[in-house]
Amino acid sequence: MYERVSFENDYNVGAHPKVLERLFETNMERLSGYGSDFYCGRAAQRICDVCGLDEGDVFFLVGGTQTNSAVISSMLRDFEGVVSADTGHIAVHEAGAVEYTGKKVLTIPGVEGKLPPSALRRYLSDFFADENREHMVFPGMVYISHPTELGTLYTYNELSEISEICSEYGIPLFLDGARLGYGLMSRRTDVGIKDIARLCDVFYIGGTKVGALCGEAVVFTKNNKPPHFENFAKRRGALLAKGRLVGVQFDALFDGGLYFEIGRAAIDAAEKMKEVLKKKKCRYYIDSPTNQQFVIIENERLERLKNAIDISVWQKYDEDNTVIRLVTSWATTERDIEALERAL
Amino acid sequence: MYERVSFENDYNVGAHPKVLERLFETNMERLSGYGSDFYCGRAAQRICDVCGLDEGDVFFLVGGTQTNSAVISSMLRDFEGVVSADTGHIAVHEAGAVEYTGKKVLTIPGVEGKLPPSALRRYLSDFFADENREHMVFPGMVYISHPTELGTLYTYNELSEISEICSEYGIPLFLDGARLGYGLMSRRTDVGIKDIARLCDVFYIGGTKVGALCGEAVVFTKNNKPPHFENFAKRRGALLAKGRLVGVQFDALFDGGLYFEIGRAAIDAAEKMKEVLKKKKCRYYIDSPTNQQFVIIENERLERLKNAIDISVWQKYDEDNTVIRLVTSWATTERDIEALERAL
Amino acid sequence: MYERVSFENDYNVGAHPKVLERLFETNMERLSGYGSDFYCGRAAQRICDVCGLDEGDVFFLVGGTQTNSAVISSMLRDFEGVVSADTGHIAVHEAGAVEYTGKKVLTIPGVEGKLPPSALRRYLSDFFADENREHMVFPGMVYISHPTELGTLYTYNELSEISEICSEYGIPLFLDGARLGYGLMSRRTDVGIKDIARLCDVFYIGGTKVGALCGEAVVFTKNNKPPHFENFAKRRGALLAKGRLVGVQFDALFDGGLYFEIGRAAIDAAEKMKEVLKKKKCRYYIDSPTNQQFVIIENERLERLKNAIDISVWQKYDEDNTVIRLVTSWATTERDIEALERAL
Amino acid sequence: MYERVSFENDYNVGAHPKVLERLFETNMERLSGYGSDFYCGRAAQRICDVCGLDEGDVFFLVGGTQTNSAVISSMLRDFEGVVSADTGHIAVHEAGAVEYTGKKVLTIPGVEGKLPPSALRRYLSDFFADENREHMVFPGMVYISHPTELGTLYTYNELSEISEICSEYGIPLFLDGARLGYGLMSRRTDVGIKDIARLCDVFYIGGTKVGALCGEAVVFTKNNKPPHFENFAKRRGALLAKGRLVGVQFDALFDGGLYFEIGRAAIDAAEKMKEVLKKKKCRYYIDSPTNQQFVIIENERLERLKNAIDISVWQKYDEDNTVIRLVTSWATTERDIEALERAL
Repeated sequence: MYERVSFENDYNVGAHPKVLERLFETNMERLSGYGSDFYCGRAAQRICDVCGLDEGDVFFLVGGTQTNSAVISSMLRDFEGVVSADTGHIAVHEAGAVEYTGKKVLTIPGVEGKLPPSALRRYLSDFFADENREHMVFPGMVYISHPTELGTLYTYNELSEISEICSEYGIPLFLDGARLGYGLMSRRTDVGIKDIARLCDVFYIGGTKVGALCGEAVVFTKNNKPPHFENFAKRRGALLAKGRLVGVQFDALFDGGLYFEIGRAAIDAAEKMKEVLKKKKCRYYIDSPTNQQFVIIENERLERLKNAIDISVWQKYDEDNTVIRLVTSWATTERDIEALERAL
Repeated sequence: MYERVSFENDYNVGAHPKVLERLFETNMERLSGYGSDFYCGRAAQRICDVCGLDEGDVFFLVGGTQTNSAVISSMLRDFEGVVSADTGHIAVHEAGAVEYTGKKVLTIPGVEGKLPPSALRRYLSDFFADENREHMVFPGMVYISHPTELGTLYTYNELSEISEICSEYGIPLFLDGARLGYGLMSRRTDVGIKDIARLCDVFYIGGTKVGALCGEAVVFTKNNKPPHFENFAKRRGALLAKGRLVGVQFDALFDGGLYFEIGRAAIDAAEKMKEVLKKKKCRYYIDSPTNQQFVIIENERLERLKNAIDISVWQKYDEDNTVIRLVTSWATTERDIEALERAL
Repeated sequence: MYERVSFENDYNVGAHPKVLERLFETNMERLSGYGSDFYCGRAAQRICDVCGLDEGDVFFLVGGTQTNSAVISSMLRDFEGVVSADTGHIAVHEAGAVEYTGKKVLTIPGVEGKLPPSALRRYLSDFFADENREHMVFPGMVYISHPTELGTLYTYNELSEISEICSEYGIPLFLDGARLGYGLMSRRTDVGIKDIARLCDVFYIGGTKVGALCGEAVVFTKNNKPPHFENFAKRRGALLAKGRLVGVQFDALFDGGLYFEIGRAAIDAAEKMKEVLKKKKCRYYIDSPTNQQFVIIENERLERLKNAIDISVWQKYDEDNTVIRLVTSWATTERDIEALERAL
Repeated sequence: MYERVSFENDYNVGAHPKVLERLFETNMERLSGYGSDFYCGRAAQRICDVCGLDEGDVFFLVGGTQTNSAVISSMLRDFEGVVSADTGHIAVHEAGAVEYTGKKVLTIPGVEGKLPPSALRRYLSDFFADENREHMVFPGMVYISHPTELGTLYTYNELSEISEICSEYGIPLFLDGARLGYGLMSRRTDVGIKDIARLCDVFYIGGTKVGALCGEAVVFTKNNKPPHFENFAKRRGALLAKGRLVGVQFDALFDGGLYFEIGRAAIDAAEKMKEVLKKKKCRYYIDSPTNQQFVIIENERLERLKNAIDISVWQKYDEDNTVIRLVTSWATTERDIEALERAL
């Protein structure tokens, strides 16, 4: 039905075929509800194994915004807010979901989508030195996304430093991994999933954008899952009756490394796309090592491009140019790349 | 893997095969996100058609608790709460999800799970006569479930009367149809889906418990969808990136009457189960015309039963007896019924 | 200006003259803000002394509804609600202030305004035996008012039993003492303020209805004040810049027993009023030992009464009779009692 | 008792003597509760008169943070947030009270505490041009403070332009007048209270910091008070039982221009203070035309100053210097100014 070539985002097809197949195979099994089934259990175990966690707790939720607001609101105390780069997804593109739970997002200017460790340290140090702090929102968690909303990645050193700062202040570090698979498989990263599991207090492994129909796996790494977290999820409307829907998918994604294969496929496609962009002399808005590429394009050329293929308009660059976003996924084909080349 | 016979609930298998098949067929189509795709559109149109609505608005959400709290919290004004029978799902079994949104559930004693029209009228009339009402929560919506949590159904006359009372007081009527398919196909009902669409201001057609993997279709019947409802859903963590997941399923459910077939299959199975219950001289706790049956069983027999098949323990009846719930679905087989007979 | 005789409530005049005087005397002193001043400190100490508390924490808030919702919402965990008699102020007459903070009020049928210990025990025991409890709101606090909304009082034995039940379940007991002074000075009570301080985890001493212009003193009795409670209050809009306003008043109220004198004056007036009611053959709706009396009166006589003096209409009793509330305070005079006698 | 000279803030003494006197005179009058009394009514009328409003609605609340969060949360729709300068009181110093109500504060970099009209226009224009806006918080109100947190004032032209922008976008303009009296009486302002009433949709006249013990008067200027606002206030814990406490004070403040006299006294004291600062060669951090002065002072001199008198440390300026805040009020005396001169 739809024959358009699309680089609009990484969630415009359904599930990876192997994931869908697993839903098919298990469909008629009678399973208990609300995440207590066999597949949720096995998927959790597989995730802990791959993360090198002896005592991790894994909880499956449906989507990214839901996961961010459930995790943040259940871990913050009443007088605390969450620190984020000002470009963070929770700060800009979640329609105020964190605020809906009564919590404030405390922003620090980001650099290429990242929260600079030095800026974080200054923020925390200034806050606790402020005589008026009892009338302010206490920083009670640090939120980072990896990859960020601009496709960039923290280095191992940066992540370690942020983790240390958080420990120093006794504040948990939460990593939003909506696109984690693409970050882990980047050709320019020194951060592995075990590093993340060790350095973060809680993080999630994104499924929706990395091969699943829906679903995110929250990993509490330090025996720190809030008590009765199922109840937290329920009252936030985030608990699936058929928890198997997410459990089976993650069981498939972490069976034999499928999750990483999906990530690699998108990265490979992104590298091919970058060759095309180079050939077509496109300027980068930001140099991203993952599956999202941000390119500055002349407004005239943009119109022609939009007629040919689907892309995302990111923001105005100047009077004559626009920043666009081109995204690959595991489903991006050679044909798509060729169509892009023609369209440019 | 799982060979247990189960009458525990109506969400212990996956999706109806025809629904799953449709997910398979459409899997590789590139579709736009957040419910703006072709299938969400077509499913909405099909639902409006079957409801006899010229100007209905249909919005797809993921689960029942999420749907209840999103609809209720987006339609109530600040000073209003929602009126429900004290056995209503929102009042008891949603972990305070309505309260989480800042709203109060105002309860009236239910009769066999239903909100008696006369009690509703008295409640509203007393409220507006009360001199202290400015210090009380205003009734701003009426919530009913159909079938109720006890499997019972409103008659056409009852539903009409509740609808009239709501109109009189200018309060919207919201019907929770988590198991709507089973209610519509009951052999003892005079309420059709067109009646519901005409008499209610908003209702939802349950998918999760009626053949889908997940998903509920909210129908605003009177051109009364709150503006920017997508934004409401987003900030409550209720907006799927791959909205297609629910759209495709409802498109299948309302293609050629599958939704009703599923309902009928469960009702047929329930009737067979009732014959078994009669044969085995089981006492009913409540006489339900739908797919949930509530039976009083001696504690001794209960133990044997639980060893043989999966059922739900509902509540203690007296020292020697317990109320149990037996639930059929479209997936209940002859073999299951026979196993139940043996187990009893 | 106003010459009407009023038994409408106990907050229809300003402050007790001695309280007002103290505001006058201290008016030009330069004091630090937000409750950190000398008078707040001394008032807190005086309250701890009278309560027999070595390590009590006292926090001053402005009004009763504010106090209830701030205390409840700051002490409950995310998955918990507060248990109350169904006639409790928080359940009925605070416009859903507890729900506004995201928390549910879990009601148990009250008896003459009181929460029966046996009913509380059954409620908690049933809850923790319920297999579905993870989908329900956990009871996380018990709320009682003393005197209750119907003017009744817990006996020492009742209060002890409720306290024990709470300890058993690890749930804090919160006592709403909006009219505490009248309860303590009742001629029919065996509960003193030291008993309350020992048996409750947190309670408040009402000022607004007992001689102050405004203000309630929350007492945390078990070293259990939530950390950063000042911040909790601030974000709920409950922190006064001029905290002295309440501190000075409570310093006066607890200087030499004024609070108790005020209570006794109202009780004495209530006893005189009861003699009048007896003489006039009025029937009681409830036999209250405090300053609120609930009387059943013929509708005809009610009209005449309302023309003569101010009273509160409580509720309809039957077709021909109405329940009214008559309230005394420290400001009730002999002249008022005589006017009531004439009016009846 | 307290003999310290203080320039710490404008709320460190009690009420203006004439205000306190009025509380004394009316103390024994029997008045109805919750703001329905004679004095609240007369004060509201006096405020409307002074504002040149035919159909203004005035509502009395207790404190500034409470007022901000009650007004903002009751006027915003679900999908909207409030726009503020990043230095705005609601953005920084109210402990997240707006977020506590579920709403987001959308910040724009301020200039000397003010929201620049051009920046506001750009923000709104960009927002409504953004293709992702359905996933963002809609700007639904503009918040400004006057005087600002830095003591600065909007000019008539600036205020008019902001008002026009708001009208253009159909967004209400809310002015926080916690220190309004000092702004109105500044020697460098062309904005009168009638201008504010005409150009804003809602604003409040601060009492706590301008001569009252407590209390703020919210003025809805365009027949736009939310329905059942009393109920909104009640559920936010913001409704005083003895509403007279605030009504009587505002009745006194707007009887014969006392509010303006109080403002003028503080401005006169500030001008005298500025002469001292000039004489002592102090550098200004910001040039404020109202009762708050921000001065850069050497750290060494700061220590001596703090020993002699009470001041507020605002923030670090550089390694050797600190920004301090010096505040006058109606209660500042010649003796205080002389003490400051000596201390500097």
